[in-house]
Amino acid sequence: MSGLIVQKYGGTSVGNIERIKNVAKRVVNTKELGKKVVVVVSAMGDTTDDLVKMAYTISSKPTEREMDMLLSTGEQVSIAMLAIAIQELGHDVISLTGSQCGIMTSNRHSKARIDNINTTRISYELNQGKIIIIAGFQGINSEQDITTLGRGGSDTSAVALAAALKAEKCQIFTDVDGVYTADPRIVPDAKLIPAISYDEILELASLGAQILHPRAVELAGNYNVHLEVRSSFNENSGTIIEEDIDMEKVLIRGISLDENIAKISVLEVPDKPGIAFKLFSSLAGADIHVDMIVQNVTRSAVNDMTFTVAMDELQNAVNIAQEFAFEVDAQKVEYDKGVAKLSVVGTGVVANAEVASKFFEALYEMEINIQMISTSEIKISCIIDKEKGKEAMKYMHKKFDM
Amino acid sequence: MSGLIVQKYGGTSVGNIERIKNVAKRVVNTKELGKKVVVVVSAMGDTTDDLVKMAYTISSKPTEREMDMLLSTGEQVSIAMLAIAIQELGHDVISLTGSQCGIMTSNRHSKARIDNINTTRISYELNQGKIIIIAGFQGINSEQDITTLGRGGSDTSAVALAAALKAEKCQIFTDVDGVYTADPRIVPDAKLIPAISYDEILELASLGAQILHPRAVELAGNYNVHLEVRSSFNENSGTIIEEDIDMEKVLIRGISLDENIAKISVLEVPDKPGIAFKLFSSLAGADIHVDMIVQNVTRSAVNDMTFTVAMDELQNAVNIAQEFAFEVDAQKVEYDKGVAKLSVVGTGVVANAEVASKFFEALYEMEINIQMISTSEIKISCIIDKEKGKEAMKYMHKKFDM
Repeated sequence: MSGLIVQKYGGTSVGNIERIKNVAKRVVNTKELGKKVVVVVSAMGDTTDDLVKMAYTISSKPTEREMDMLLSTGEQVSIAMLAIAIQELGHDVISLTGSQCGIMTSNRHSKARIDNINTTRISYELNQGKIIIIAGFQGINSEQDITTLGRGGSDTSAVALAAALKAEKCQIFTDVDGVYTADPRIVPDAKLIPAISYDEILELASLGAQILHPRAVELAGNYNVHLEVRSSFNENSGTIIEEDIDMEKVLIRGISLDENIAKISVLEVPDKPGIAFKLFSSLAGADIHVDMIVQNVTRSAVNDMTFTVAMDELQNAVNIAQEFAFEVDAQKVEYDKGVAKLSVVGTGVVANAEVASKFFEALYEMEINIQMISTSEIKISCIIDKEKGKEAMKYMHKKFDM
Repeated sequence: MSGLIVQKYGGTSVGNIERIKNVAKRVVNTKELGKKVVVVVSAMGDTTDDLVKMAYTISSKPTEREMDMLLSTGEQVSIAMLAIAIQELGHDVISLTGSQCGIMTSNRHSKARIDNINTTRISYELNQGKIIIIAGFQGINSEQDITTLGRGGSDTSAVALAAALKAEKCQIFTDVDGVYTADPRIVPDAKLIPAISYDEILELASLGAQILHPRAVELAGNYNVHLEVRSSFNENSGTIIEEDIDMEKVLIRGISLDENIAKISVLEVPDKPGIAFKLFSSLAGADIHVDMIVQNVTRSAVNDMTFTVAMDELQNAVNIAQEFAFEVDAQKVEYDKGVAKLSVVGTGVVANAEVASKFFEALYEMEINIQMISTSEIKISCIIDKEKGKEAMKYMHKKFDM
């Protein structure tokens, strides 16, 4: 749809009445530029956390279906409040839940995937000249049950809507100015990146930059959605994310540090065909995302298998690894929360052997032990001691003259 | 459906975590008696009021559609919390929003009427052996928008579901023990009524007894739903409401006082055919319920028209009366908030002339001026000075030896 802009505002941006009014003004300003506007919002401030806490006062194991029923109210409050604030500014507006705006998802509660979006209602309301306010993070499954999309859900809602509606662009408003060469809270010299490719931000985001969820970026890349990350508190232009960034120009985009991970090792696994598949398919079946994997042959016919997962999936992952170890007669399962992943990201990483050598040299100079290594087309990552993470990030940022 | 019980718990009964757990136990007890159970709940405690206040910090005139979007989250939180509490007790349960359980309503936001209930989903889940928890007060209209049912909405949801599902009975759990001969907070001698007919409770309820909303009673009467009003805080048997109460037995059921009304007068209305219709159809068009109407011919060709409305509809009603007065060239519109309606209710009222005479005698003895009078098959009501209302109620309760 030509002239259509999808905007997404996170929980901090709609954290109180004043901020909701501020967002209403921004939305109206965009509308008054002659644009059609679809706005995706998250729950206000800590609402979701508060609802989770309330549920856990009643049960330590509430079902995911009922948690989705509970948590989806957070966004529903936000859309009504923002719609009311926009009406107060004299504009036609309508709020829609995930169900009403046709976001059809898989049946998997608390971690649903968007299957497709039926845009009939949105298109109808846009053609009536209305601003549309949509509840992020939620959808509806084939049984008409409310689902939530899990981590990065609202970003994903926004990008999926931008793709389905063929929007001119998708603007993600957040509480930072855009994407930086490193986390500015840790590296004060970090610089804003004005433009970056999908692949590069994907590596930076999934490595802990926390600006934009990788699911959303991946979707944007697949459907070629023009993305912008901007602050909802100022008028700075932020970071543009699109396909046709001049990839030859910049060697290194940024340094990232992910402290929110844990390492699990299954020791002395008998070396049989299909045994790795057995473990990792069990993990995938429980929707646990495994990041780095290393397999060491320690002695004849026995392997050590080591992998990393997000911290909040550690317990589930360890349980599954234990079951696996028992089943295949491995020696034992160990885990370590004291690790971090340090990465250097940029299209020049693999093209230029100097990058890797500089990276390892820096770690050597800092006397940091490398526990695991992985590389891709555009990044090198190492698992290191968490205590040395921040220091290493700062040193690395300098080493690459960023 | 045989063996099916519909229970409704109001906002006070689910006002905090402990109370939700208490309700969960009651529901499970009923289920364990071998019954199928459908539970309708209101929003927790002051949730609805808090949401209304929040909306009004942003706008003094939020649209009713967006208010419905906002307020319906209150019940959605309750159903999820209650479902989680019941799961914790080891029972199969599922929560359903008004939309999911097929409550189809008119398009009128904030005051929607239930058109019909598509019970497919509820019947399916009941046949799976599940307890069903349903959000009261809400439904969905033909445009798939969330509507709320207005005053008495949750009671109405419960009775409508009981009718649609052909339930054995519909139990309304509240914070009082049942229906009394007068408001026990005002008349300490008031007695619990163990059984009462639809018509009688209708008169008592609409006259301000506040136990059970008249909409719900009317619906129960139309579909012959066996109703019970009981306390959610004890095991007392409460009040049963059904058709085949022995109507000859009791002369007077109770005395009620409604202080939540106001009186409006349009003075010196030219006496033309259809002129009353004009005023009252305008009021009906704005969904304003007019209660008593009196028309006095003061002098030739000019009438004074006086009527009463609920206090919270006073402003709207006065506006409409003003427009009407201007249009038909009436002299002016006056209103009075200082009035109350005192009524005596019972099947014996009209059958026995002594009742009316006793009623008027009591008012005379108390030197209370009667401003308006209306009578029906089973009640006599007078509009009197609000300041004398409570005193008159107590006196009347004694006068009729209740």
